[in-house]
Amino acid sequence: MSANPKDFLDRNAGLDPACIAPFPAARKIHVGGSRADIRVGMREIAQSDTPAGNGAEANPPITVYDTSGPYTDPDARIDLRAGLAACRQPWILERNDTVQLDGPTSEYGRARARDPKLASLRFEHIRKPRRAKAGANVSQMYYARQGIVTPEMEYIAIRESLRLNELRTDSRYEKLLRQHHGQSFGAAIPEEITPEFVRSEVARGRAIIPNNINHPESEPMIIGRNFLVKINTNIGNSAVSSSIEEEVEKMVWSVRWGGDTLMDLSTGKNIHETREWIIRNCPVPVGTVPIYQALEKVNGKAEDLTWEMFRDTLIEQAEQGVDYFTVHAGVRLAWIPLTAERVTGIVSRGGSIMAKWCLAHHRESFLYTHFEDICEIMQAYDVAFSLGDGLRPGCIADANDRAQFAELETLGELTQIAWRHDVQVMIEGPGHVPMQLIKENMDKELSDCFEAPFYTLGPLTTDIAPGYDHITSAIGAAQIGWYGTAMLCYVTPKEHLGLPDKQDVRDGIIAYKIAAHAADLAKGHPGAQLRDNALSKARFEFRWADQFNLGLDPEKAQEFHDETLPQEGAKLAHFCSMCGPHFCSMKITQEVREYAKSQGVSDEEALKKGMEEKAAEFVQQGAQVYKKA
Amino acid sequence: MSANPKDFLDRNAGLDPACIAPFPAARKIHVGGSRADIRVGMREIAQSDTPAGNGAEANPPITVYDTSGPYTDPDARIDLRAGLAACRQPWILERNDTVQLDGPTSEYGRARARDPKLASLRFEHIRKPRRAKAGANVSQMYYARQGIVTPEMEYIAIRESLRLNELRTDSRYEKLLRQHHGQSFGAAIPEEITPEFVRSEVARGRAIIPNNINHPESEPMIIGRNFLVKINTNIGNSAVSSSIEEEVEKMVWSVRWGGDTLMDLSTGKNIHETREWIIRNCPVPVGTVPIYQALEKVNGKAEDLTWEMFRDTLIEQAEQGVDYFTVHAGVRLAWIPLTAERVTGIVSRGGSIMAKWCLAHHRESFLYTHFEDICEIMQAYDVAFSLGDGLRPGCIADANDRAQFAELETLGELTQIAWRHDVQVMIEGPGHVPMQLIKENMDKELSDCFEAPFYTLGPLTTDIAPGYDHITSAIGAAQIGWYGTAMLCYVTPKEHLGLPDKQDVRDGIIAYKIAAHAADLAKGHPGAQLRDNALSKARFEFRWADQFNLGLDPEKAQEFHDETLPQEGAKLAHFCSMCGPHFCSMKITQEVREYAKSQGVSDEEALKKGMEEKAAEFVQQGAQVYKKA
Repeated sequence: MSANPKDFLDRNAGLDPACIAPFPAARKIHVGGSRADIRVGMREIAQSDTPAGNGAEANPPITVYDTSGPYTDPDARIDLRAGLAACRQPWILERNDTVQLDGPTSEYGRARARDPKLASLRFEHIRKPRRAKAGANVSQMYYARQGIVTPEMEYIAIRESLRLNELRTDSRYEKLLRQHHGQSFGAAIPEEITPEFVRSEVARGRAIIPNNINHPESEPMIIGRNFLVKINTNIGNSAVSSSIEEEVEKMVWSVRWGGDTLMDLSTGKNIHETREWIIRNCPVPVGTVPIYQALEKVNGKAEDLTWEMFRDTLIEQAEQGVDYFTVHAGVRLAWIPLTAERVTGIVSRGGSIMAKWCLAHHRESFLYTHFEDICEIMQAYDVAFSLGDGLRPGCIADANDRAQFAELETLGELTQIAWRHDVQVMIEGPGHVPMQLIKENMDKELSDCFEAPFYTLGPLTTDIAPGYDHITSAIGAAQIGWYGTAMLCYVTPKEHLGLPDKQDVRDGIIAYKIAAHAADLAKGHPGAQLRDNALSKARFEFRWADQFNLGLDPEKAQEFHDETLPQEGAKLAHFCSMCGPHFCSMKITQEVREYAKSQGVSDEEALKKGMEEKAAEFVQQGAQVYKKA
Repeated sequence: MSANPKDFLDRNAGLDPACIAPFPAARKIHVGGSRADIRVGMREIAQSDTPAGNGAEANPPITVYDTSGPYTDPDARIDLRAGLAACRQPWILERNDTVQLDGPTSEYGRARARDPKLASLRFEHIRKPRRAKAGANVSQMYYARQGIVTPEMEYIAIRESLRLNELRTDSRYEKLLRQHHGQSFGAAIPEEITPEFVRSEVARGRAIIPNNINHPESEPMIIGRNFLVKINTNIGNSAVSSSIEEEVEKMVWSVRWGGDTLMDLSTGKNIHETREWIIRNCPVPVGTVPIYQALEKVNGKAEDLTWEMFRDTLIEQAEQGVDYFTVHAGVRLAWIPLTAERVTGIVSRGGSIMAKWCLAHHRESFLYTHFEDICEIMQAYDVAFSLGDGLRPGCIADANDRAQFAELETLGELTQIAWRHDVQVMIEGPGHVPMQLIKENMDKELSDCFEAPFYTLGPLTTDIAPGYDHITSAIGAAQIGWYGTAMLCYVTPKEHLGLPDKQDVRDGIIAYKIAAHAADLAKGHPGAQLRDNALSKARFEFRWADQFNLGLDPEKAQEFHDETLPQEGAKLAHFCSMCGPHFCSMKITQEVREYAKSQGVSDEEALKKGMEEKAAEFVQQGAQVYKKA
């Protein structure tokens, strides 16, 4: 932590300091692009030198992807009342295809804006919303298909590359860049992620950039299977409610630990005002399920929902800056009876709301019949679809059933419609699926939905561990991420049981960062293994602090270490608490290596001759090389 | 808990009551076999009735595999000083192929027995050891190959079947027995697990029954890929040491949560006496790494190890009742230089000890050169081999390298030698392996080691999450279990950082029970899905207590639930804390279902006509069936 404590307290803006403390040995760096206003934030973790006994080399800093925006940057001033800087605003303005509105155009938005009782709750500096000029389409997909490489795309190319081109020319990284070949089931990740590659993937519909023009505070990021696997986290108040402050703090907490996008699933009071505070302060894309708020507007009576008020809700939220909408338009009337024999019926909230509406009115839902109208709203603000899986399985028994797959086929049809409007689409997926049925989900999504990015909840690979569903689902998430899922929706240990607290959110995020990274390794994302290699080298050389700092959760690692060996000296010790000083395999290995070296077996020479050959030769020669000195 | 608190306190024998409290709504049942002394303990979990709104049916009890022996049985009296009842003793005696010795035959065992300073530490009722009669072989593999179905094999067949034949004829289980087809990569699990099937798998070397004749207290269990996937847990004191009482309590804690076998990896003081206390009180097989104790005997100087003192250690431990020995006989001299270019060298303690010995003496290790002598000891007590992977990779970068696979090939040669002696063998596996390289490990093990059971540590699928390696490794463990690994060695959150405490042990075990069960589901083990189905049905019907009780950790589930809704009434409520009373998808689904029913769509009828056809018909008829009443 480079800032002095006073600065730190000044800038915490009333947030729990734990939310915004810089990570140990880390600093925020900004990598520039082709223009001055492209500055991609990354986290650089410093390492200490290798101790003399191991060769005394200098270890280079390691750059990692950073979702925390300015919150972990000690040089940034945080003022939640003012919101984050609008980093994307110049790019939006210079395209000259949008207009600034006089204020919200939704009825609900206007009513909230003029209600004097809400003054104390309201975010103070609400920006006037923008919308596409008449006839214009402002989606990144539209630009991509016109052959335009936007600054957002360039930003993403830099962000996904993690300075790899630079590192490749730096000899200090040579060993650390060693990487296994990945098996990516048809994904094709290039060695170099260029802005043009980003453009082509978005144009093709294989990736999306959730990027509402009314959320210029967010840092561009991409969701697609030829990029790093992303994770989503959920926050939101409920009937029992939490305050706006709590929700904003949850958001900051979530991006701190690595949430790539954030869904606000509020169903309680003052949803509109809460969302404004979140979006204005959120450096990552924000998604919602607009039907939740719509239902609140009709006091929870699903059958009273109408297209008109749903439409008004979409516009209300689009003008606040929501980057993607979950829309359960695949819940068709004919699919509902397919769930009758299920063990757990319909478990998606959105799915069950729409099912109830369909049955009550005995017709197709307005989401399905008005899908083209929805597309027109989406393209005017560049809101992406997250086509909801309202009929996802809620238990192992219901996995991969006809109801689930019938809906998936409908989502494929809808994808084609959205793409005709150049509206970006991702597809939501399950849920609860045993391991042997996971791949079928991915394969079917790719073929039925034309390779639109898949965004899955887990899946949970067994139902028998309430209290541990971050683990049951991380197993499935890692697998489906490897098969090609682009974003994983996290699950916390409280799933099925209660509302997650801060600790649960952290546990859920770390479990999902693990799943996503395991998938990146397995797919062979270039450079993914660098962090593993650096951490393992630190581990082998007993650089304890480096091992902690390179991990996903440095605090937890150090805390665990210190439970057994709390002394500061232990963090410099060449042994660990598991085996004690006289019985350490790493120590013995070092002796073995030194012994081999002292007898003239240089690493390089051995490597050059080919290790196998060399080994055979040792034996043939009676292993004389090992002769005791 | 049926016992009154007084009984409970009387019987806890100084153990933390949390270790031996019966599980909620559970009772210990014993399923009989062909003879009176075959009584297989299982856990039966009672369920409450389905509430009236959901059909008011009675829900049958669910039987689950139980590793806790008598410890969770309120009717059992626990006396750690006396040890557990020797349930297998009659079977051993009636085979009439063993002799009782006058006392330990190892030099070390005799020295410890006569040392008066150890009197206060010593287990009071040490049984005189048994050994095979001259020329006899007492291994279960030997019997199996003679065509003999032992009581142990029958016990296992009953244990693995979980009363499935009985349940199949009971209509209350009909729906709950629905199960997906599994994909088991060449494993062939029969619909009915018979004693003869157990015998044939053991004869074939595809499964082992770790079952030392000097550990008659253990309940027979099997490790093989056509059976339920098992998990191993590790305990053991170290230089800093913990007391004998602590180690015994760790053992009880471990079997409580589901550890199928237990390795005592002590490297501290009084290893011999600690092990005696553990084995006499342990209802599951106990494994060790004898080289650890041997190294203590030479004050940690690997080069001073000799075959003679190692041999004495094997006999010492075999006569105490250790059921399997990890032996790192695959660390051949020629393989050691293959590790020189690794990022983390040799990380196995046993492997590094043997590597050091080999280099110091510039010859093959005594484990390799005396392998046939070791086999003779193993067969005289029925100790199984766990052939150690001394050269397993310690990081992602080192996975599947030549050193690792060269050793695996050697383990295959050794397997053939052991089998010539009818000695049971399992093969240890890695370690740290990224997902895309896991299957190669399993495939190579099956072919190079002739389908001997594989027993892996994780594998960890990334190195970047110290503090969360129970999760990085559960991801790999579930996958390799699905591919055919028979037993998974657990990893706790403290891996790489410190010594696990009770909470870590519990977290590690639950993560591994999840991985093992996910693998059982994926392989299609008959009846594996029953518990998932029952729990999910309970969840759907808001039977909160049943949902908790059917889970792997009922206490934790209830604790999490109560954090948000602590009132007793909430556990009877038809909603949960996530959505509140007015916004529950399960509640809505029930309404949907009732609505559909009230309109004349009976589940049975719909199912009979085929759900899809019916759905199409609805639409054709203008969906009249959903007409509002």
